[in-house]
Amino acid sequence: MLGQYLRDDNVLTGRRQRGFSHERDLLMKLWKKGFAVMRAPASGARARRFAVPDLVAIKNGVVFAFEVKTMREQRDLYVPGHQVSKLREFIRRSGGYAFIAVKVIGSGSGWRFVPLDQAEETPGGNYKVSVEKFSLGLTIKDIIALAEKHKSIDEFFFK
Amino acid sequence: MLGQYLRDDNVLTGRRQRGFSHERDLLMKLWKKGFAVMRAPASGARARRFAVPDLVAIKNGVVFAFEVKTMREQRDLYVPGHQVSKLREFIRRSGGYAFIAVKVIGSGSGWRFVPLDQAEETPGGNYKVSVEKFSLGLTIKDIIALAEKHKSIDEFFFK
Repeated sequence: MLGQYLRDDNVLTGRRQRGFSHERDLLMKLWKKGFAVMRAPASGARARRFAVPDLVAIKNGVVFAFEVKTMREQRDLYVPGHQVSKLREFIRRSGGYAFIAVKVIGSGSGWRFVPLDQAEETPGGNYKVSVEKFSLGLTIKDIIALAEKHKSIDEFFFK
Repeated sequence: MLGQYLRDDNVLTGRRQRGFSHERDLLMKLWKKGFAVMRAPASGARARRFAVPDLVAIKNGVVFAFEVKTMREQRDLYVPGHQVSKLREFIRRSGGYAFIAVKVIGSGSGWRFVPLDQAEETPGGNYKVSVEKFSLGLTIKDIIALAEKHKSIDEFFFK
């Protein structure tokens, strides 16, 4: 658990740097679609006392909080429990929607957005996004439809 | 103008560091009151392509964007035009309210929040918050009342 925090906070690693460039890609796409967008500060322990998602996008008073993930091939994705907690806590306060934003690098396919409540808790307290859930994930167009209130989240998923 | 940007972006100056500690103070207060809060990344030119306020706080789907200012004594405050523009652009996209958050350091009085449209444009394209407007500014309690929709912004100001 401590190791996880250390890895996340070390902005100098290549891995984290690559993560930032994909975050910027998503940020730019949402900005072009008319969203107000904000990335989390690349900060240390102090900022971690507050629940802050990787990326927040807002349009029309509708708030979207994203945990941003990339993978090199389509596979089950595991999200650490503390990342799910901070996303959930942020949205509990702000209102709106929490998503895991996933991109398969080099696949040519775009971002997929999996609602947080579609992730399954593992016995170890982390969360799994299965390949099936990933492929059912929303697209950027769907996110825009939610923001413009043309669709409700229930129209995408039957719970 | 360029000088202004350079000063803003240099996170190593004492002035900017002090600014951050006051931002954190405001962040903490809003967090304790149940807001989702996010500070702008302390980043360079790249992030500046997007309009990002110093601080964003959200509660109940109501968005507040703040430009954070401190002063050593109560006086007219001048805000650079580009800071007003980014605040305005963010809120145009997100919906919600834009404020200049001001604290007079060492005065013992708390934060005051002046709605952006109460700042007066100067002939040079910057904005002035007069001492009168400052003293009419909202308190944290008023911000909470707005978030909880107990009050509308028009109840605070007669335009």
